[in-house]
Amino acid sequence: MLSKLPEIMIEPSIRMALLEDLGRTGDLTSDAVIDPGVTASVVLSAREFGIVAGLDFARLAFSLIDREVVFTCQVADGDAISPGEVLAKVQGSARSILAAERVALNFLGRLSGIASSTAKIAKAISHTRAKISCTRKTTPGLRFAEKYAVRAGGGVNHRFGLDDAILIKDNHIAIAGSVEKALTRAKQYAGHLVKVEIEVDTLEQLEKALYYRPDAILLDNMDSKTLREAVTLIGGNAISEASGRITAENAPEVAETGVDLISIGWLTHSTKVLDIGLDFVG
Amino acid sequence: MLSKLPEIMIEPSIRMALLEDLGRTGDLTSDAVIDPGVTASVVLSAREFGIVAGLDFARLAFSLIDREVVFTCQVADGDAISPGEVLAKVQGSARSILAAERVALNFLGRLSGIASSTAKIAKAISHTRAKISCTRKTTPGLRFAEKYAVRAGGGVNHRFGLDDAILIKDNHIAIAGSVEKALTRAKQYAGHLVKVEIEVDTLEQLEKALYYRPDAILLDNMDSKTLREAVTLIGGNAISEASGRITAENAPEVAETGVDLISIGWLTHSTKVLDIGLDFVG
Amino acid sequence: MLSKLPEIMIEPSIRMALLEDLGRTGDLTSDAVIDPGVTASVVLSAREFGIVAGLDFARLAFSLIDREVVFTCQVADGDAISPGEVLAKVQGSARSILAAERVALNFLGRLSGIASSTAKIAKAISHTRAKISCTRKTTPGLRFAEKYAVRAGGGVNHRFGLDDAILIKDNHIAIAGSVEKALTRAKQYAGHLVKVEIEVDTLEQLEKALYYRPDAILLDNMDSKTLREAVTLIGGNAISEASGRITAENAPEVAETGVDLISIGWLTHSTKVLDIGLDFVG
Amino acid sequence: MLSKLPEIMIEPSIRMALLEDLGRTGDLTSDAVIDPGVTASVVLSAREFGIVAGLDFARLAFSLIDREVVFTCQVADGDAISPGEVLAKVQGSARSILAAERVALNFLGRLSGIASSTAKIAKAISHTRAKISCTRKTTPGLRFAEKYAVRAGGGVNHRFGLDDAILIKDNHIAIAGSVEKALTRAKQYAGHLVKVEIEVDTLEQLEKALYYRPDAILLDNMDSKTLREAVTLIGGNAISEASGRITAENAPEVAETGVDLISIGWLTHSTKVLDIGLDFVG
Amino acid sequence: MLSKLPEIMIEPSIRMALLEDLGRTGDLTSDAVIDPGVTASVVLSAREFGIVAGLDFARLAFSLIDREVVFTCQVADGDAISPGEVLAKVQGSARSILAAERVALNFLGRLSGIASSTAKIAKAISHTRAKISCTRKTTPGLRFAEKYAVRAGGGVNHRFGLDDAILIKDNHIAIAGSVEKALTRAKQYAGHLVKVEIEVDTLEQLEKALYYRPDAILLDNMDSKTLREAVTLIGGNAISEASGRITAENAPEVAETGVDLISIGWLTHSTKVLDIGLDFVG
Amino acid sequence: MLSKLPEIMIEPSIRMALLEDLGRTGDLTSDAVIDPGVTASVVLSAREFGIVAGLDFARLAFSLIDREVVFTCQVADGDAISPGEVLAKVQGSARSILAAERVALNFLGRLSGIASSTAKIAKAISHTRAKISCTRKTTPGLRFAEKYAVRAGGGVNHRFGLDDAILIKDNHIAIAGSVEKALTRAKQYAGHLVKVEIEVDTLEQLEKALYYRPDAILLDNMDSKTLREAVTLIGGNAISEASGRITAENAPEVAETGVDLISIGWLTHSTKVLDIGLDFVG
Repeated sequence: MLSKLPEIMIEPSIRMALLEDLGRTGDLTSDAVIDPGVTASVVLSAREFGIVAGLDFARLAFSLIDREVVFTCQVADGDAISPGEVLAKVQGSARSILAAERVALNFLGRLSGIASSTAKIAKAISHTRAKISCTRKTTPGLRFAEKYAVRAGGGVNHRFGLDDAILIKDNHIAIAGSVEKALTRAKQYAGHLVKVEIEVDTLEQLEKALYYRPDAILLDNMDSKTLREAVTLIGGNAISEASGRITAENAPEVAETGVDLISIGWLTHSTKVLDIGLDFVG
Repeated sequence: MLSKLPEIMIEPSIRMALLEDLGRTGDLTSDAVIDPGVTASVVLSAREFGIVAGLDFARLAFSLIDREVVFTCQVADGDAISPGEVLAKVQGSARSILAAERVALNFLGRLSGIASSTAKIAKAISHTRAKISCTRKTTPGLRFAEKYAVRAGGGVNHRFGLDDAILIKDNHIAIAGSVEKALTRAKQYAGHLVKVEIEVDTLEQLEKALYYRPDAILLDNMDSKTLREAVTLIGGNAISEASGRITAENAPEVAETGVDLISIGWLTHSTKVLDIGLDFVG
Repeated sequence: MLSKLPEIMIEPSIRMALLEDLGRTGDLTSDAVIDPGVTASVVLSAREFGIVAGLDFARLAFSLIDREVVFTCQVADGDAISPGEVLAKVQGSARSILAAERVALNFLGRLSGIASSTAKIAKAISHTRAKISCTRKTTPGLRFAEKYAVRAGGGVNHRFGLDDAILIKDNHIAIAGSVEKALTRAKQYAGHLVKVEIEVDTLEQLEKALYYRPDAILLDNMDSKTLREAVTLIGGNAISEASGRITAENAPEVAETGVDLISIGWLTHSTKVLDIGLDFVG
Repeated sequence: MLSKLPEIMIEPSIRMALLEDLGRTGDLTSDAVIDPGVTASVVLSAREFGIVAGLDFARLAFSLIDREVVFTCQVADGDAISPGEVLAKVQGSARSILAAERVALNFLGRLSGIASSTAKIAKAISHTRAKISCTRKTTPGLRFAEKYAVRAGGGVNHRFGLDDAILIKDNHIAIAGSVEKALTRAKQYAGHLVKVEIEVDTLEQLEKALYYRPDAILLDNMDSKTLREAVTLIGGNAISEASGRITAENAPEVAETGVDLISIGWLTHSTKVLDIGLDFVG
Repeated sequence: MLSKLPEIMIEPSIRMALLEDLGRTGDLTSDAVIDPGVTASVVLSAREFGIVAGLDFARLAFSLIDREVVFTCQVADGDAISPGEVLAKVQGSARSILAAERVALNFLGRLSGIASSTAKIAKAISHTRAKISCTRKTTPGLRFAEKYAVRAGGGVNHRFGLDDAILIKDNHIAIAGSVEKALTRAKQYAGHLVKVEIEVDTLEQLEKALYYRPDAILLDNMDSKTLREAVTLIGGNAISEASGRITAENAPEVAETGVDLISIGWLTHSTKVLDIGLDFVG
Repeated sequence: MLSKLPEIMIEPSIRMALLEDLGRTGDLTSDAVIDPGVTASVVLSAREFGIVAGLDFARLAFSLIDREVVFTCQVADGDAISPGEVLAKVQGSARSILAAERVALNFLGRLSGIASSTAKIAKAISHTRAKISCTRKTTPGLRFAEKYAVRAGGGVNHRFGLDDAILIKDNHIAIAGSVEKALTRAKQYAGHLVKVEIEVDTLEQLEKALYYRPDAILLDNMDSKTLREAVTLIGGNAISEASGRITAENAPEVAETGVDLISIGWLTHSTKVLDIGLDFVG
């Protein structure tokens, strides 16, 4: 079940985004065209199918501009939504609502986009045991939010930074000299709560790696046949993770090899936003 | 010609991104696997065709981690690059280079992705007078950077915030009561350096709007025929901007209607990163 | 009509100012001399004629120290006030009121001072079409607030920064080589929402400049006769702005030349505060 | 002798001011009109007589924009300067110099203005033992800088905040009930390094106050005769400070009463900037 | 009587500490194990005798995580507490309470530890006129809080920074050349609200120092006999402060020498936390 | 081997601490007593036996005040030091050195204190396989630094926050209903790189817990006999961690039970600083 992020973690991002957009005078257009006392009733609604994520981000955008704006969710993060479906109702000062609109939608669209892409692939492989994971290829400053969106879409999270797990990649192996040396040093260095994962490109590397009992193994850019052999070799003694240009189309084939995880960079770095609009209803 | 952003504008974003990634211990993997004295020589190189943007962002990622890392550009922002082409050489402590790698690539890939998408469409319409513009649908916190990437790709920038121009949209017109009322108020409110633009959906609205001499007119979701008529009606008395679901495919048709500008939200909100990698060369 | 600044734009300045004043222990005097439970009722009142600006700044100073302090405005920003007139009533903990007093008055006095100076000159030229504008000669960190105060006083705003309009000055012309070169480059560089203004010292420069159709022309340090000729030459094809050592005394003469705008640096850099005091009423 | 402020104290203000001015694109005008490689040599020079203060602030404005700009002081903070006198030479990229110009001058002009006003009054009373002091009526966020400017002009500083001394004013006395109660509580509360000052309006209050041995006494709005009697009553047992609408004209008369200090709010809240300009020399 | 710190001074530290602890996902354990709707009732209670300090810090930790958590104090800062005594009741979401627990206890334990150590020594010398003072040997970033805890324990505060008093130490004397030179310069430099203290190691130094009338004298590392002679020499003409390896055991002997103050670095740099726990009651 | 923290992680803390100490005028004493041109040569040296940690923190304190101060380490973090041993030489402006002294020593003393306490216990149990670990009972804002100091002393780190591992404590079990329910939910919720630890008080709880294969088990407040049985029960299938009032004296007895880890809160919350001084040598 999806856990909410504490508001104290979200607020600084919303505040920053609002100030970025308000600039040095605020919303010139609304100030020019709309009288201060005018109120409005609007809805945020989906323009396409997807999974919603970021409702608290949108809510805060409105309430940080004007604490008297009332934001009422009709769905919850992680819910599937359809074109035309109302996600939230917003009532209050028309000026305030329009001043916060873009920031609310920028967050909501991006996070829902990530959740929707994640869910789409998760669904495609739901007949297997594999889970979808994101990477550290996230938007600078928004990693906590984008990782949350992946969870909202039914995915799981990989490392949050360079500091919460060891992930030995090809460059590390090259510099260390060998899989053996790298893994020996890593196992020795890791604290008791830190897991160690290693990236391997071949079954030979995999066999060497397994000897040192890493917690997880990243099988990079292997074809399905090799992946299947890798899974057999690992034999449940480590978590198996497949990566490398995986799409909604080829994900089932990869998942059916028996890997535990499929990690996909584009979920966060190249996903498209979910189209969500704001419409006046009164 | 593309102007660089002053480093003082870039540095806070890079610093924030590095701290987000280093977390509370720094790079566990490199610390575990690589000795502190080891140096390395790496290159950042393109894995696909595109336009590079963000080299200063990448350079700063390395130099903020370790001011002794030497970063040498081989190309400049705005340059076209090809698969395999070296964008920059980086030399220094292997630990420092690996600790900064992800942040450098996250910025460079995203900004180059935006520049490349922009350039692709700009090229497709280069036989017309139209220019490509971005919108305010940008990543929270990175608007200045993403707008820069659009310029690097040969596009132009729309508003930077709610405060640097007036843009009257459908919701504003609805609340104000009419195109006439909205434009009258806007023209009166705008400072002498602030331009006024209005969004219209129909030629009727356009005609009404023109009477009040807005500086620019956003022609939203019109077909080519209507756009062409709109351009004729405007007759050079305002800047004409087309928007609404414009892609690389339909852009030429839109541009050939004679509009001055084509604005595209997905350049910044849904573009894919340009694939750029870091490879050890010694 | 004057639009309020969103509170989210004001709050960081008030918070910073309060912390600057509270230092590392808070208000020693009130803590020493006044019991915590004592309440007080005070008024902020004008000690001289002027225009009030900054009431939200003052209100926030009290409410950020103690959200239970009740602040009730008797006038609104932009209103003319007289000696003895009550601007706001403040009720609550005596300690809290005294701890916030200085910060509230520092903002209110400064912003009202700017509004009052602006209004004084605006009134002196109200028989003409000219408007009063401020410049970028503002207090570091408070530009958004000081520009707001100018608006409260009936003035208009010039550029908010180096980034929201092009203003070619003598040094730019000197480096570019000529008015022609500078204007050609500027017109080509400016985005479609960015206006271009150029400063000229002579009618010869003006004639050259007009050929390139700048949006505005700054007529620097010209006598009335020359200004009048300049206005005729411009003939409504650009906004005309006069600047250079303009005071309340000589403003009418300048305004009567027919210029659109008179810009005055000292409104923000050398104005005197409006004398506003805090008095206990119970 | 004037002590410099550590650069670490100044830098945040300059950085903030530069970002305020650069906005979201940087210096459009210089980017448009000047080629990146062009260098320039400029001087900062006085346009009127005064005392300079803030050279480090100006220097940092240039070096934070571009660390290769060379800034060479010709005078030092606290020096008397004359019209036409060169304060500093600046050499480097023309774009960088113009981008930093306004921020450098905004600080330098304001701080030199404060120093000059302070020095003018200090000179007028140099035949007496009195010193000129500022108050807490400073610009929010710049108190440390404005207090420094007062020192540069030969003045001394009063409290830096609510926390570094006790200053009992009329409102405190009113709430506490009497001078006696207020001073008794204050003396008891004050730490051993905290001085206690009390404001008195009459000689009666003064006599009562002296009984409790305050460190300093603020004689508010007294005429010269009363001040003279007050000084006699104090008899060197406390520092005597005169305040209330003191100008360059009436300062000598006040100072000749024998008070130790004259404190003046307008030095920081209503002073005019010193006119300093930036001129190209090559 | 102990004065509370304004909440605006405390909040930034609590916010920072919560974000430090929540990291990039929040409280994994509570999210995993506890349903979002579950509420709990807990008490913060003492596990040992001491003096409580920091209740507002603890309250804010809970309310910044979740403004609906109700925190009810049973005691006040400065109160003596016994093992098992309930300091506060906390009711609300179980997830919120557990997420804030560690931060609340880290502040409350540390500040109560400092208050308790201070009170213990203050009590041991309560038969004398001496007071206990802290130093600048505080935790970076928490000086204002630790100094407050010392006050809660019945102690007094020494300097808050390098800027609010002059304290001439051995190194300053060495560089200045002599006690005489150092004190002459200091007395001349100090503003009228700034006190001057000097550290002396011998009675010879003391005699030289007294001639220049410092406000306070720090008697460093003297034995009781010498301290007694020093107090006699000072004769009430300056505040006398003893320092140097003072413990609860030897404090009475030091205090009985007649010094005004005993300053102790370890109160803030090496004190042990007071053991306070959080227990579920329903 | 101890890895250094990247400077970008340390700098914000040092900058904050310096500004906290410099306050609003800087170092009054040095400014008063020492001429700006005077240079000095000082050493930081140990006053007692211990392990040094925090040399980069001290170095940065000096270089952020004055980049021309030269700081030369004679030892490295993690080294054992003896009374009188020189840790670093510092040369440069006497004013700069004295202004940075306290901040440098506050960090160096605290971090070395933690390292020394850690090392002392680590040494006492070096004949066993157990390692010493810290907890989350750290100083708010300095967790990353204190955890580093623990590593410098030869210890290992526990969780860095609520987000990098799951640790089920008694309160979680109580709310969840049972060890079984808590562990089932935790194992299901944890990402593939997140370890799960559970606290047990009895062997019965332990047996239940083991069934669900947690990664680590915290054996809380058990006597040696029970610990020994617990270790046997665990049988290497999970990491065993002992906690609860462990001191240098009883640590060997605990360690000899065969546990993997001993975690100690007071290492960070109640350790005493290592006495390190700054002495002038010329």
